[in-house]
Amino acid sequence: MSSSPNKLNVHALLWQDRQLSVLDQRLLPDQVHYDIYATAPEVAEAIRSMRVRGAPAIGIAAAYAVALSVQQYFVADNVEWQYKVNADIKILAASRPTAVNLFWALAVMQEKLASLQDSPVDAMINTAIEIHQQDIAANQQMGEIGADILADAQGILTHCNAGALATGGYGTALGVIRSAYHRQARTVFAGETRPWLQGARLTVWELAKDNIPATLTADSAAAMLMRSGQVDWIIVGADRIAANGDVANKIGTYSLAVLAQYHGIKVMVVAPVSTIDFTIENGGQIEIEERAASELLPASYVQEGSLVNAWNPVFDVTPAELISVIVTERGAVFNPFEQGVRKLKNEY
Amino acid sequence: MSSSPNKLNVHALLWQDRQLSVLDQRLLPDQVHYDIYATAPEVAEAIRSMRVRGAPAIGIAAAYAVALSVQQYFVADNVEWQYKVNADIKILAASRPTAVNLFWALAVMQEKLASLQDSPVDAMINTAIEIHQQDIAANQQMGEIGADILADAQGILTHCNAGALATGGYGTALGVIRSAYHRQARTVFAGETRPWLQGARLTVWELAKDNIPATLTADSAAAMLMRSGQVDWIIVGADRIAANGDVANKIGTYSLAVLAQYHGIKVMVVAPVSTIDFTIENGGQIEIEERAASELLPASYVQEGSLVNAWNPVFDVTPAELISVIVTERGAVFNPFEQGVRKLKNEY
Repeated sequence: MSSSPNKLNVHALLWQDRQLSVLDQRLLPDQVHYDIYATAPEVAEAIRSMRVRGAPAIGIAAAYAVALSVQQYFVADNVEWQYKVNADIKILAASRPTAVNLFWALAVMQEKLASLQDSPVDAMINTAIEIHQQDIAANQQMGEIGADILADAQGILTHCNAGALATGGYGTALGVIRSAYHRQARTVFAGETRPWLQGARLTVWELAKDNIPATLTADSAAAMLMRSGQVDWIIVGADRIAANGDVANKIGTYSLAVLAQYHGIKVMVVAPVSTIDFTIENGGQIEIEERAASELLPASYVQEGSLVNAWNPVFDVTPAELISVIVTERGAVFNPFEQGVRKLKNEY
Repeated sequence: MSSSPNKLNVHALLWQDRQLSVLDQRLLPDQVHYDIYATAPEVAEAIRSMRVRGAPAIGIAAAYAVALSVQQYFVADNVEWQYKVNADIKILAASRPTAVNLFWALAVMQEKLASLQDSPVDAMINTAIEIHQQDIAANQQMGEIGADILADAQGILTHCNAGALATGGYGTALGVIRSAYHRQARTVFAGETRPWLQGARLTVWELAKDNIPATLTADSAAAMLMRSGQVDWIIVGADRIAANGDVANKIGTYSLAVLAQYHGIKVMVVAPVSTIDFTIENGGQIEIEERAASELLPASYVQEGSLVNAWNPVFDVTPAELISVIVTERGAVFNPFEQGVRKLKNEY
């Protein structure tokens, strides 16, 4: 059995000595290395380069980055510093396009900043810390809500990493898996998640840290695994959820959802309400990030005039009709989502 | 436009100076290196270690290996050598379990050997060469038959490598793509095919050798690609086909077939009749090779007592009902397959 689900063994982000420490997730599982940042553009670069990834963690890192910017530039009796902070916010907003939590966190921090009179530095830092702490609390709430829904389900397949590393701590999809496993042992499968191998490098690593055994599979083995009868639920996180329940998440999620429907397996999406973009009606309006072909291509093809190219979208959109339930910290919404998702907004 | 489809630019196997040259496909695309073998156990090891792979190529390599064994051990007026050849055949049969062409080629070679009186060496070599040449001819026939079916289809997605490298030359699935592309340009997508990346290392390499542009994708992006409307056909090879039309092929093929059905896309399997195992009723009876977890796991987890394991089946079975057409050198069989597949046998 795992250790207490409330103990956090894995930290993607640490606020220490008025600086932000960021675990370089590109080096896991071989090396646990933190970079320490004092400026917002450094944090934006950490997001862009995927040292930190995962929609909620990106949002939290951006919140701390705004606090760093205010800390760096604030000068009393002069508005000049505000232009510099706004410039930093623009840099942060351009770091990655798909995760809405980034824009949500920047909006919260901007709103806070606008409401402050003099000496905003500590208040901004505290707001970022609050966003971080609320995310952890939300994850733990989602963990319990999700575990209730899983009941006695035995086999779970997750994709990418929606764990402590992708959030403030504890995790969304992996938070549910942690809570469910704490109640009773389950069989946990993780897809390796090409091209960045978040499943192979991050998900099984953090599950092992919590003493939860995990079995890694190639992404393309998921269909055969489902056919074998060993999986009851697919559980994933989300990078952006449209008002109708369409979900943008790591490339391959849509594939898993189609395969799950064919095999009569249920699909759970776990995400805080900050992942829901109430301004868009459906997933067709979500910008899907395409990353460099070189993430897939052998080096010899990465050159001018090569006949070999690669198409590398790193997210896809799963239509709401393929999703059984969306779990948020404000409760679970079952399909059909139209009314339920809107209700989550009103409860803000 | 590509060069003539009948010119072979890529050779996995070459018979030269009474020895077998085997292209080490593990080193592609960075290095083109041939190992030269004079004994059957060396060839068995080349199959086991995946220097040579692909069901038809494995069969051809095994045929040459039997010829090498006879060449090594034959002594007139003494039956002792036959025991040594039989021992080599056992080693070859144990090299990999799923591709039926291996067992087919060994049976053909054994039958030939039994029919020969004295000095069987040259006759056995010639039989292996004949198997090799017939495979190339079969591929070219399948290419034309498959291209007829594709008609004006624009977008094709293939998986793994069922090309010149997987066969005697020209290829099964890639043979159809070559022939179809020679008639008119098409858009060719290749899944990278984890864990060995046959798509990324082999398929796009040999297509580029024939001047056919190709776009590589992560396996898990196939569903999104299909949804985009850019793909009309999935075209794959096969490692073993049951009498009812169930197809064992590279892991991920079943996934693609389910996704294709969901998106209204057709699935073509291309394989010589030697890939059909008429002795088994359905795909449930096909032994599926599982390879080492270390092919998927980060090195730090490959140790006693690790909480992290991996499940690594390297083939899956696609039920006949998900396949639109099976193309063989004796003609195309459309679903339902029951009668048509049996008829291919009778035409032998």
